Amino acid sequence: MCDQLRWDYLSCAGHPALSTPNIDALAARGVRFTRAYVQSPVCGASRMSFYTGRYVHSHGAVWNGVPLKLGEMTLGDYLRPLGVRTALVGKTHMRADVEGMQRLGIDPDSIIGVRVQECGFDPYERDDGLHAVGPDGRYDPRQPRYNRYLNDMGYAGANPWHDWANAAAGEGNQLASGWAMRNAGKPARVAERDAETPYMTRRAIDFMREADAPWCLHLSYIKPHWPYIAAAPYHAMYTARDVLPAVRAPAERVDPHPIYREFMALKVSRTFARDDVRATVIPVYMGLIKQIDDQLGILFRFMQERGLFENTMIVFTSDHGDYLGDHWLGEKDLFHEPSVKVPLVVYDPSPAADPARGTRCEALVEAIDLVPTFLDALAGDWRQHAHRLEGRSLLPWLHGQQASAWREFAISEYNYAFLPVAQSLGVAPRAACLFMILDRRWKYIHAPGFRPMLYDLETDPDELRDLGAEPAYEGERRRLADALVGWGLRSAQRTTRSEGEILAAYGKSERRGILIGVWEEDELQPELWWEYLGKDERG
Amino acid sequence: MCDQLRWDYLSCAGHPALSTPNIDALAARGVRFTRAYVQSPVCGASRMSFYTGRYVHSHGAVWNGVPLKLGEMTLGDYLRPLGVRTALVGKTHMRADVEGMQRLGIDPDSIIGVRVQECGFDPYERDDGLHAVGPDGRYDPRQPRYNRYLNDMGYAGANPWHDWANAAAGEGNQLASGWAMRNAGKPARVAERDAETPYMTRRAIDFMREADAPWCLHLSYIKPHWPYIAAAPYHAMYTARDVLPAVRAPAERVDPHPIYREFMALKVSRTFARDDVRATVIPVYMGLIKQIDDQLGILFRFMQERGLFENTMIVFTSDHGDYLGDHWLGEKDLFHEPSVKVPLVVYDPSPAADPARGTRCEALVEAIDLVPTFLDALAGDWRQHAHRLEGRSLLPWLHGQQASAWREFAISEYNYAFLPVAQSLGVAPRAACLFMILDRRWKYIHAPGFRPMLYDLETDPDELRDLGAEPAYEGERRRLADALVGWGLRSAQRTTRSEGEILAAYGKSERRGILIGVWEEDELQPELWWEYLGKDERG
Repeated sequence: MCDQLRWDYLSCAGHPALSTPNIDALAARGVRFTRAYVQSPVCGASRMSFYTGRYVHSHGAVWNGVPLKLGEMTLGDYLRPLGVRTALVGKTHMRADVEGMQRLGIDPDSIIGVRVQECGFDPYERDDGLHAVGPDGRYDPRQPRYNRYLNDMGYAGANPWHDWANAAAGEGNQLASGWAMRNAGKPARVAERDAETPYMTRRAIDFMREADAPWCLHLSYIKPHWPYIAAAPYHAMYTARDVLPAVRAPAERVDPHPIYREFMALKVSRTFARDDVRATVIPVYMGLIKQIDDQLGILFRFMQERGLFENTMIVFTSDHGDYLGDHWLGEKDLFHEPSVKVPLVVYDPSPAADPARGTRCEALVEAIDLVPTFLDALAGDWRQHAHRLEGRSLLPWLHGQQASAWREFAISEYNYAFLPVAQSLGVAPRAACLFMILDRRWKYIHAPGFRPMLYDLETDPDELRDLGAEPAYEGERRRLADALVGWGLRSAQRTTRSEGEILAAYGKSERRGILIGVWEEDELQPELWWEYLGKDERG
Repeated sequence: MCDQLRWDYLSCAGHPALSTPNIDALAARGVRFTRAYVQSPVCGASRMSFYTGRYVHSHGAVWNGVPLKLGEMTLGDYLRPLGVRTALVGKTHMRADVEGMQRLGIDPDSIIGVRVQECGFDPYERDDGLHAVGPDGRYDPRQPRYNRYLNDMGYAGANPWHDWANAAAGEGNQLASGWAMRNAGKPARVAERDAETPYMTRRAIDFMREADAPWCLHLSYIKPHWPYIAAAPYHAMYTARDVLPAVRAPAERVDPHPIYREFMALKVSRTFARDDVRATVIPVYMGLIKQIDDQLGILFRFMQERGLFENTMIVFTSDHGDYLGDHWLGEKDLFHEPSVKVPLVVYDPSPAADPARGTRCEALVEAIDLVPTFLDALAGDWRQHAHRLEGRSLLPWLHGQQASAWREFAISEYNYAFLPVAQSLGVAPRAACLFMILDRRWKYIHAPGFRPMLYDLETDPDELRDLGAEPAYEGERRRLADALVGWGLRSAQRTTRSEGEILAAYGKSERRGILIGVWEEDELQPELWWEYLGKDERG
């Protein structure tokens, strides 16, 4: 998994200037999904859906830093009973439900407690990749092993993650911090092999070398997520000439939806609306992607030498995209394709997948489909978990089959209470929810308290025209709003009884003596009546 | 709390033949809510909403025997930190999430493990009150202390709950089991003082005698729930002459809603459709209520002698009603008033409640309002839990005030997969959900896969005319369906961060070095830039 990688910044996805031969080669051996959507366009919420196989509305971790509530099962909880070691190298952006652990007496130092805090993964090398420090201290209290590694390699200081890997040399004895985007084009102070992406790739290889049992590895790169800064030669591999024009129109700024207007007013959006910012940052964003592709080449070669390509499913994806100035926005958070659509390439080693190799799949798929896919590939029976898992196995698509009764809508959510947007609009946190429902043509955004937004991806693939207020489209809006109703009322919390258990339990209570609506004993089977109800204990 | 007591079977609620002076006296000292609705008209699901303060769609324990998922907080979890001992005497119908406890390593014999299995209560005398036995064994594996008590009192046998308390003497050496309703009018074999209701009342008094700290007691009677059988003299206190005519009309059986039709076809409904059954059972149902009222008289006198009326809030309610043949139905399960509306009388000892004593409140209130009410009365600050609690404090109503911005709709849910209804209709468990949304006039029932049902409580208070298919009411149906949308999309799972915590966290990440959208260092406060980003660790 990459962090903040747009769906369209791969050569196999059609980027004209960026070359990603190793990811392209994976796509040539697997299936590339062209309509893959995350369940929320923000790191934490999106990842909790990837890991739980459930919508944000179901798991409740609606934004970065909102703890995943105790009891939500994650990938590791599903795979561990199958004898699969499920480990993490890199980022999760998961906050543990410490209060819940205390209430239920779960020792944070116990094996279970540690796994709970690691989002269900076995710890190997967790590094959420944001080691910023400010007047109030560290953003992430955990000191990463990566910092110790950099110190050992001679990069001095308390936080070499910033001072070397995410800063360039400035004037005099100054640092040119990667937090200031004007420095994006300067080379980071670390040697390329000591940058985050190669380091994490080596840690993944270490894990595969050490693994002595079936395993599932979540290799989770922090890049090309900000700070936008790359080590040489990647800092200069692309130039302003390689930058695609911004997908935006002056009309978008004319009487926009109030929520969209507030997002356009955010500092990051105003910054990315500038062409000089895009010309400086985007080449580095591309360089960071190129570095990931090169590192995946190293990883894939190692896996091939080890014969791991014969028995390992490989998924390449991202937790969300990056506007990069499109639609007058920076970062992610809203539901335009550059933000909510992600790359998804899946390689399945089984011969059953041969017919589909190198193909594209245009079905609507969601991040929550991965857990069912892994369960299906490993054990074949993911539907026994269908009372908890809200996604679907992708295996039919991976085998070139038409999945039966596939979903007609994809859903994504966003809570804007954690940005100045809700405050500006005077919306309380619990009301600051947005819901995107998308079919193969229409994208409808339900915004409680405001009018909806609507885009026609067929006639307006760049999403430059919001039809949410146009009377002519009331029918489409009604249809999509009604579909969202059914989704909102879905059964997602009855997680302690499966469909099969309910069907199997049917009629059992009478055999345990619960006899409802009986008038006289003759209505009962004699065995029930005589043995259990008629006998007089005195006799 | 009573079990299966209809809202209208109290003299203070207008029953012409039934006399409940002690409950009436409580109402004369408190407030009687005339529009109190349970969140599901079935024991287990309704109780889990009473205890969690959350809708069934949120806590997920959709029917009897569906475990309450680990992590859902209940009354005891909210009151314990306030130094309040929260105990149970009687029924909860709660199934523990044993699988979740195993997954998270919670020892069932630990204090926390025991509380989790007791639905958050401190154990005192749990007795779910259904000790049926059949060819497949006991319905409730727990042997109740009550059975040991009966044995000690000389009532022999392995299950005196059935053989003495819920059976009469039959012919010869036979038992006349309470499970056969034709026996309802015969006296149970136990002396009245040894019946379940007086026994549980004494256990409540024992608890109050022993209590040495602030406490909250859930006294939860199993009666007037079936088996319908009462000890003398209550078995004969009322006669067929006291039975009100069934609220039903032949028109209800003409082309009914498919789901309603299947409920009318259930054995218990066909039995209760018979006048001889009603004439036999209802007098005993009334006698069981009379017995509860007499026992509450004993309890209230004890509390008065102890001065407990000066500092104890008392709530009288039920988990759902009983059709008793109304609408051609038996049991509960659907949403007509006899099933989904419950009695609710609240006595608040505080002087602030004096203006409201003896009044009625017609506001729409729900079972989920009790936890916030207790928190409000004890600590005043229940809103800090508003990200988990979906109810509202009733304290303003109890103090004779107009609660601000009170709810406009009440919601109740039911999953019919656990009855033959879903099988008959070919509906899968996850789809077998019904949602009732009610305002002060209209009751709308959303039935996925079927047309809705609609009743006008103003022009048709007996709910004899389903307007769900009549074109003239499309507007009302649309309005109520739209209200249900907002409910379905509510924020109910973000239980690990409160509204206040979100507002307090706003803007904090920048002070921890997360600087988004910065182009050049000048945009930063000098302290941020120089101290944390500019310094060169080499210098």
